[in-house]
Amino acid sequence: MQTINKEIGVKLRHIRKHHGLSLLDVQKMTDGIFTVVSVGAYERGNRTISLPKFMELCKFYNIPPHVVLQYPRMTCRIMCTDTNE
Amino acid sequence: MQTINKEIGVKLRHIRKHHGLSLLDVQKMTDGIFTVVSVGAYERGNRTISLPKFMELCKFYNIPPHVVLQYPRMTCRIMCTDTNE
Repeated sequence: MQTINKEIGVKLRHIRKHHGLSLLDVQKMTDGIFTVVSVGAYERGNRTISLPKFMELCKFYNIPPHVVLQYPRMTCRIMCTDTNE
Repeated sequence: MQTINKEIGVKLRHIRKHHGLSLLDVQKMTDGIFTVVSVGAYERGNRTISLPKFMELCKFYNIPPHVVLQYPRMTCRIMCTDTNE
């Protein structure tokens, strides 16, 4: 479970950085639904994210949840870049 | 969150039934990692599933997690059927 948390965390961090957002930006833009502490913990793989929260966070980042799950890190980066082109 | 739980629950129930498994079968086959009570609650949408648990359950059912998230219920049924053909 720890491994999955870390894998997902790396992807979530990549997606956030791709959008040029800080953890504080996420907190402000979601009106505190996602806090600096919670998103930081998800990204480090220190906190287990629930499926609904994961889907909400993906929605906020405007990337389909299945895309995040489907692809390894590198492919996810490419997909992410393509989406914004 | 309640809505997402219910949507995911309906899909998880469909996949289990597609495999011809009872809740008790799942409990026995996973050595109690997934219990009758927990899987039943996930399927009814009464309990929020974590992302790692969801991925483990999908692995047990031999269906990629992104497929379960990607498709609406009907398409998921068709995908599921195709997989076993």
